[in-house]
Amino acid sequence: MNRPRLLTGDRPTGRLHLGHYVGSLANRVRLQDEYECFFLVADYHMLTTRLDHLSEVAGNIKEMVLDWLSVGIDPQRSTVYLQSLVPQVAELHLLFSMLVTTPRLQRLPSLKDTMRDLHITQPSYGLLGYPVLQAADILCVRGELVPVGRDQESHIELTREIARRFNEMFGPVLPEPKALVGDVPTLVGTDGKAKMSKSLGNTINLSDDADTVRAKVSKMYTDPNRLRATDPGTVEGNPVFIYHEAFNDNRDQVEDLKSRYRSGTVGDVEVKRLLAEAINRFLDPFRERRREFAGKPGLVGTLLQEGSARVREETAHTVRDARSAMGLSYDSIFGKGG
Amino acid sequence: MNRPRLLTGDRPTGRLHLGHYVGSLANRVRLQDEYECFFLVADYHMLTTRLDHLSEVAGNIKEMVLDWLSVGIDPQRSTVYLQSLVPQVAELHLLFSMLVTTPRLQRLPSLKDTMRDLHITQPSYGLLGYPVLQAADILCVRGELVPVGRDQESHIELTREIARRFNEMFGPVLPEPKALVGDVPTLVGTDGKAKMSKSLGNTINLSDDADTVRAKVSKMYTDPNRLRATDPGTVEGNPVFIYHEAFNDNRDQVEDLKSRYRSGTVGDVEVKRLLAEAINRFLDPFRERRREFAGKPGLVGTLLQEGSARVREETAHTVRDARSAMGLSYDSIFGKGG
Repeated sequence: MNRPRLLTGDRPTGRLHLGHYVGSLANRVRLQDEYECFFLVADYHMLTTRLDHLSEVAGNIKEMVLDWLSVGIDPQRSTVYLQSLVPQVAELHLLFSMLVTTPRLQRLPSLKDTMRDLHITQPSYGLLGYPVLQAADILCVRGELVPVGRDQESHIELTREIARRFNEMFGPVLPEPKALVGDVPTLVGTDGKAKMSKSLGNTINLSDDADTVRAKVSKMYTDPNRLRATDPGTVEGNPVFIYHEAFNDNRDQVEDLKSRYRSGTVGDVEVKRLLAEAINRFLDPFRERRREFAGKPGLVGTLLQEGSARVREETAHTVRDARSAMGLSYDSIFGKGG
Repeated sequence: MNRPRLLTGDRPTGRLHLGHYVGSLANRVRLQDEYECFFLVADYHMLTTRLDHLSEVAGNIKEMVLDWLSVGIDPQRSTVYLQSLVPQVAELHLLFSMLVTTPRLQRLPSLKDTMRDLHITQPSYGLLGYPVLQAADILCVRGELVPVGRDQESHIELTREIARRFNEMFGPVLPEPKALVGDVPTLVGTDGKAKMSKSLGNTINLSDDADTVRAKVSKMYTDPNRLRATDPGTVEGNPVFIYHEAFNDNRDQVEDLKSRYRSGTVGDVEVKRLLAEAINRFLDPFRERRREFAGKPGLVGTLLQEGSARVREETAHTVRDARSAMGLSYDSIFGKGG
């Protein structure tokens, strides 16, 4: 029961895909053994940049949780919860907002990146405070470890600063969480572009059925210089072979295809057919679990309610301890524990 | 029961004084007939500028509520509540933070004034968001009217902007509150400085006893050019006579003193003695009510708990309606009203 606490999560922006699996989900499933994991569905964070698209959020939450469950996130061992069902997070966010300066937030490179990518000229107050809300997410359950990519490391550093400043001013209440920084592996898109991404339309989703996978794979980008099946082809950097390496459990077949591709003795059609088969084999257990979970009406709702109730209780403790340390529990007015 | 809703309040910074009475309390007591009043003890707002002084807050809250009750704020007719006992205000603050830009907040003159007055070079994120929290305070109970001085008018305008933007984006949920702008009368300090203020140490507190009032009045600043009781003195702008005008219910006595002061036939000692008597007469009913309320142990706590429970209920409605309009009630996951 004394596993260190780990928190991570996703914004519910849509269906998860193989890029998410390679980049973070596979790792999360493993981390469940070693850590007490909290997996956050970050719907409040959608408000910072997607106020115009909120009608999609409900559907996205449901599908994302099913995606999580399908890959092996285990609600028996880990806590899956919905950010906006924990109002105490907003309280902690408000308390923490007093402990960080505006210029400190304005200097964060992630803010500039987001503004550039989304063509935002005037950030909302909430977008500026995104990392403060993240600090509240992490510290509400007193998370000790946060797996992040290098681009988010600065946010964890800010969370540490907030915790440190709080502890220095009011007493030791909050842990200083550590970033579990890994090189987040990125997966090339089906179109050969550097990254699989919903916005680029180059994904294979975890919930795609077998026919969809076959259709997407058949249209994949391969070696553009190879015009005929008898031309020698390039394996390195070729998306089709990157996927074979990543998802095909038949290693002998992969090696055989690579050598035949190089020597011009296998056509793209066969390479792709075998890749589609391999990806479908890979996705089959996910699909089966997904069917199982999706078949139970109300399961996602119940699971989020239960997980969120658990986090509310934790967060209420954290808020109570924080307020007490700050002198805001007002025992002299309300009596002890009032 | 259909009186328009009015919200106002104070930060619990210390004992209230005659300047507060003249500036706002007298007006509030009157407003209770015409409006459904919510009186806010704004303890969260203390965090924006007084993080170093939080140990004083509990005591200040208690004394301030007793001051309110003593002047005639009537918890039978009005709701008196404590901001931090309404966590849903923090939720609303978080939602609203997405609807206002950072530059809009940075341009508010009140921010610059506060930074200059308190020698703050880098405002905290929370100080920048002070007016957003005010908007949450006002809109959480769907306040329609907010009595403010001219310096706070820009904050009400911001609240209106937030409500308008919300309604335009998501549907009509929030009222656009109006500022009830009055020239807030200021009261000169006992030292003759322009404003009675705790930080200047020139106050007569509502809770001062009769001897303290006598001592403070005897040291009051008067006409500096009058050296002897037989010198003709100046009444206009003379703090002692300003107080006589404001607090002495014996109008004949006031007129008599003014004329004798002008002609050099009354000494400062007598003018002050009669002023102290008048102020004590003025404060006596306050003192009596204060004694009555202070004598009931736990009364302030109970009153704040009850008022805050009422506001929590109101605010929960507001948050529910706001989330529902935004598409964040997730009926498809949790069922209707889930």
